[in-house]
Amino acid sequence: MHQTFDAALEINLLHANQAGADHNRAHFDAWGITCFNLMSSPGAGKTVLLEKTLATLSSELKLAVIEGDMTTELDADRLRQYGVPVIAINTGRSCHLDAKMVAGGLHRLEQEHNPAELEVVFVENVGNLVCPAEFEVGEHAKVALLSLTEGEDKPLKYPIMFREANCLLITKMDLAPYLEADLQRIEANIRQMNSQATIIPVSARTGEGLDAWFNWVRQQVSKCNRSRPHRHLSAETPLAQI
Amino acid sequence: MHQTFDAALEINLLHANQAGADHNRAHFDAWGITCFNLMSSPGAGKTVLLEKTLATLSSELKLAVIEGDMTTELDADRLRQYGVPVIAINTGRSCHLDAKMVAGGLHRLEQEHNPAELEVVFVENVGNLVCPAEFEVGEHAKVALLSLTEGEDKPLKYPIMFREANCLLITKMDLAPYLEADLQRIEANIRQMNSQATIIPVSARTGEGLDAWFNWVRQQVSKCNRSRPHRHLSAETPLAQI
Repeated sequence: MHQTFDAALEINLLHANQAGADHNRAHFDAWGITCFNLMSSPGAGKTVLLEKTLATLSSELKLAVIEGDMTTELDADRLRQYGVPVIAINTGRSCHLDAKMVAGGLHRLEQEHNPAELEVVFVENVGNLVCPAEFEVGEHAKVALLSLTEGEDKPLKYPIMFREANCLLITKMDLAPYLEADLQRIEANIRQMNSQATIIPVSARTGEGLDAWFNWVRQQVSKCNRSRPHRHLSAETPLAQI
Repeated sequence: MHQTFDAALEINLLHANQAGADHNRAHFDAWGITCFNLMSSPGAGKTVLLEKTLATLSSELKLAVIEGDMTTELDADRLRQYGVPVIAINTGRSCHLDAKMVAGGLHRLEQEHNPAELEVVFVENVGNLVCPAEFEVGEHAKVALLSLTEGEDKPLKYPIMFREANCLLITKMDLAPYLEADLQRIEANIRQMNSQATIIPVSARTGEGLDAWFNWVRQQVSKCNRSRPHRHLSAETPLAQI
């Protein structure tokens, strides 16, 4: 639910959110956690990507998930089967997670687990290609998924998401033979918006591209850990109320 | 861009929007126009559905389109090829059309065409399964599209859209052989949210279901026209500034 007209209110809102995101990130850094914010349209495959990711990476990294949905714990229940902590946040009428909601999730993570023992938190955002891109939650990297079925023009029509992402996964590649989608054109349209992001075509069904995705995750974790040599500063640091 | 926390502000915002929507609808009614608001996730097939609809129905009904996108006129340009008036609205950072934006579109329609000669206006909303459902724009019927590729759980996870819709099109049915989607389960999940809506599985590629969709549009137009016997009250009625 939204405010669209009051520019000053918008700036205040984003400013307050940014302060909350910075606060969350400070805690992630103190705990030695690398946080990924996964965003896409509904049904592009965030949850199945996380299922594949938890199945493979949970043997080498200590993982947790913060799962955002307007309502239901359907996705959270799917992910709990992989034996990692999953905190479900229902956003109600809100179309995106914001820093305050994620701080609430971190409080619950702190109560139920020891965050300093974790290495990665995946945040699965509400399915929406517009608004999640504007609300940082304290992540170290933004991951956007675009399903091959959504069409080549989406990077041009939803520019903020494609500009902000550090990694772009083009999902459902197994459907390529049955679509008229032109992968090169999708990549060229992404490049118009973002010259830096890593682009990985993937299919959860065939496994195409998943190794490249896992390697990208590993690299980000290493990069984050190198940038904060004194990790696990204090396992007891409480997450202050925002 | 959004406000999520201030309940009073939200109520004021929706209240103001509703007044604008009622105002737009009064003009549609005075002009004898039936207005449809098309909503879905990005890439579910709103624009291709409109292409098929304009190609078939423009010989029997006087049509126009108000086309909402965050940026670009890509979709508007696709639809202009069908020889009907197309008004493009760029919403900028806003993730939905609201009544005021559509009123602006109606002003432009009034300047460039005679609305009293039109019978149908299709509003194509921004691709977003969350927020457009809450902002009426003056439509007589809400149409939601759900692509078969998006998954069976979406009616449960995005309840407002599925509760509000008068017609639900399940799109990309031609991909059914290549997916594990269960159409009966999708329909059952929709029915949990909405016992009344017309549900039509369609494929723009094979033509499946399009006749049923065209007939539903024709029925809505007839129903609207029967409910306002004095149509075309005044072709000169100006659209007052909101």
